[in-house]
Amino acid sequence: MTRDSTDVLAEEVLRRCREQGVRLALVEACTGGLVCARLTDVPGASAVVERGFIPYSNESKVEQLGVPLELLQAHGSVSAEAVEALAHAALERSRADWAVAETGIAGPTGGTPRKPVGLAFLAVLRRGGQATVERHVFTGDRSAVRRAIADRALTLLFERLGTES
Amino acid sequence: MTRDSTDVLAEEVLRRCREQGVRLALVEACTGGLVCARLTDVPGASAVVERGFIPYSNESKVEQLGVPLELLQAHGSVSAEAVEALAHAALERSRADWAVAETGIAGPTGGTPRKPVGLAFLAVLRRGGQATVERHVFTGDRSAVRRAIADRALTLLFERLGTES
Repeated sequence: MTRDSTDVLAEEVLRRCREQGVRLALVEACTGGLVCARLTDVPGASAVVERGFIPYSNESKVEQLGVPLELLQAHGSVSAEAVEALAHAALERSRADWAVAETGIAGPTGGTPRKPVGLAFLAVLRRGGQATVERHVFTGDRSAVRRAIADRALTLLFERLGTES
Repeated sequence: MTRDSTDVLAEEVLRRCREQGVRLALVEACTGGLVCARLTDVPGASAVVERGFIPYSNESKVEQLGVPLELLQAHGSVSAEAVEALAHAALERSRADWAVAETGIAGPTGGTPRKPVGLAFLAVLRRGGQATVERHVFTGDRSAVRRAIADRALTLLFERLGTES
């Protein structure tokens, strides 16, 4: 994995955050640090990225972010309910103004008929606001799915920052 | 940032961890998720990567990982003392068997004569064991420094797993 010198998306998100004085918390349950790695590869990221959480195991979603075990048991860790809980938890457990959270099934295994490989849920949340939650089913191999989730997470944040500035 | 289809290093670390039944916790204070993103891009990573922490702000090193503020004030967040504390904290706050932690100055700003851009500290720690701590000064631009830190973190873990199997 090398820096894409034309990661315009990460650069534009960083620029918009800096202009608006926004600090971010990231929760990457499927992309495993990819969104945060892309953002922090841009010079000046430390003014924006406050902290990140990679709750890769189910236990870590409960222990690291305080998501109720009952919620995960009822809806699964790849669900709209889980991703919204992760976004709220990120703001409760950070100093950030905005949180971006994602959870998904990158594959190649782990898919089911109801929750196929490529399924992802994304949430963007401003402190004191309402979460925007999206459901997607991305195609491609593991890396392509993860890349698509990361791209959409950054784009969704960029859009939300644009409408609330 | 795209998947390097020949990320042999991440694949070999994953393979060795799986063979030894090792679960990992990562702390990425400078690489910001890059190590974890590389590992989790490999199929089967969920059997190995337990959770990750990205304590990018100084506050988050204290709040997210419980590193004493006095330690950071005395030695700085880019120090052997800090990286060893981060590795211990990762094991205390996870279910992992091994922790890998890093902290550094990726640049282009933030360097001083005593702590130049490119300076990094790495720690690898087995639960119940002693930390291996390394100091490096890497050269190149921000992306190159981050990539070098990530490469060395993965290599150091690979070596330690090899000698303790």
